[in-house]
Amino acid sequence: MPKIVVHEERRRELADAVLSLAAREGVGSVTTRGVAEESGWSIGVLNHYFGSRHELLHAGLLRASELQYAAYDAILGAADTTALDKLHALTACVLPLDERRLAMTRVFLFFYAEGTASEDARTRIADLLGKWRTLVRDVLVAATREGGLPADLDARTAALHLTALTDGLALEAVLDPEVMEAIHQPEAVARVVDTVRSPAGRSRA
Amino acid sequence: MPKIVVHEERRRELADAVLSLAAREGVGSVTTRGVAEESGWSIGVLNHYFGSRHELLHAGLLRASELQYAAYDAILGAADTTALDKLHALTACVLPLDERRLAMTRVFLFFYAEGTASEDARTRIADLLGKWRTLVRDVLVAATREGGLPADLDARTAALHLTALTDGLALEAVLDPEVMEAIHQPEAVARVVDTVRSPAGRSRA
Repeated sequence: MPKIVVHEERRRELADAVLSLAAREGVGSVTTRGVAEESGWSIGVLNHYFGSRHELLHAGLLRASELQYAAYDAILGAADTTALDKLHALTACVLPLDERRLAMTRVFLFFYAEGTASEDARTRIADLLGKWRTLVRDVLVAATREGGLPADLDARTAALHLTALTDGLALEAVLDPEVMEAIHQPEAVARVVDTVRSPAGRSRA
Repeated sequence: MPKIVVHEERRRELADAVLSLAAREGVGSVTTRGVAEESGWSIGVLNHYFGSRHELLHAGLLRASELQYAAYDAILGAADTTALDKLHALTACVLPLDERRLAMTRVFLFFYAEGTASEDARTRIADLLGKWRTLVRDVLVAATREGGLPADLDARTAALHLTALTDGLALEAVLDPEVMEAIHQPEAVARVVDTVRSPAGRSRA
């Protein structure tokens, strides 16, 4: 393999170790030593790729975003599904309904908090949030065209609300067992998506 | 004043200094030394009241919750307002629409992240979230009785969604200028409350 590919693979492998560690033991366990043990690579190798604990955590955030976007792409690219089905899948894909998504939510929550102290982290989070809203808005527009949602839907407000509601539920579920139980109910995802069918999400004259 | 009252007053004064500091310079600046400078008390006095930086931050969280509940009480106790008006006021009171509420949101976001690492912080956050949902649910029930909201409202789901949406918007607004701008629009709070008028918040047979 060309050297650059090996480097990229190693970086990804180390970033995956950051995520596994964060998922299993919390973000506090993500240290150069911890990731070295988790990945099987030496501290020397770790230091070669990441100059600080902060860079390690950043690599974890980027990897989490990358995995999240791969999941979105798979949903958006699915054949024979309506836009409304895609909206359900996109919503479910952000809620911590299994270990993988729980790990993601923990990592994102950590970076949300980081974002109040670091302008770099804040910009990255804002960028991710903006992309997520745009993606959901496009699917909302497609769903109105297909007749799955009311034609007078204000897609911009509906996207703002649906992503913030999903985000709020995801973050709260990590902390509050009642919210975790609520999002695991059979119709929970459908009800979250149904909130866009309110007067709040309609165009106003 | 009895000694215990002086103690309580001093604790509150120091906790207020924690919040001012967190609001102005971020939670990272909340150290024993920083709070000593902010409050004008010596590090010795600080150490007498709070054994560690963690205890200082906890005092800040408790004070933020206390202030939040005082704001809720003022809203709930207001005469000549409908339950629906109270719902609007409760929602506005959580969104970071001024410096005070922005500081609160920053402090809560810090403790949300803490809650993924500390069981003690997690329990406190879950307790606060549970109380907030119950309070909003009671006002939703009152609004249906008054005819301000549909009689078949599922107050439990509507309260879960409304609090999570408000929470999500508040946290995202701290990080993302687009969300901050959106919640400052003239009808933003009304539209957030309007989301409960969707099929998601109706009782199902």
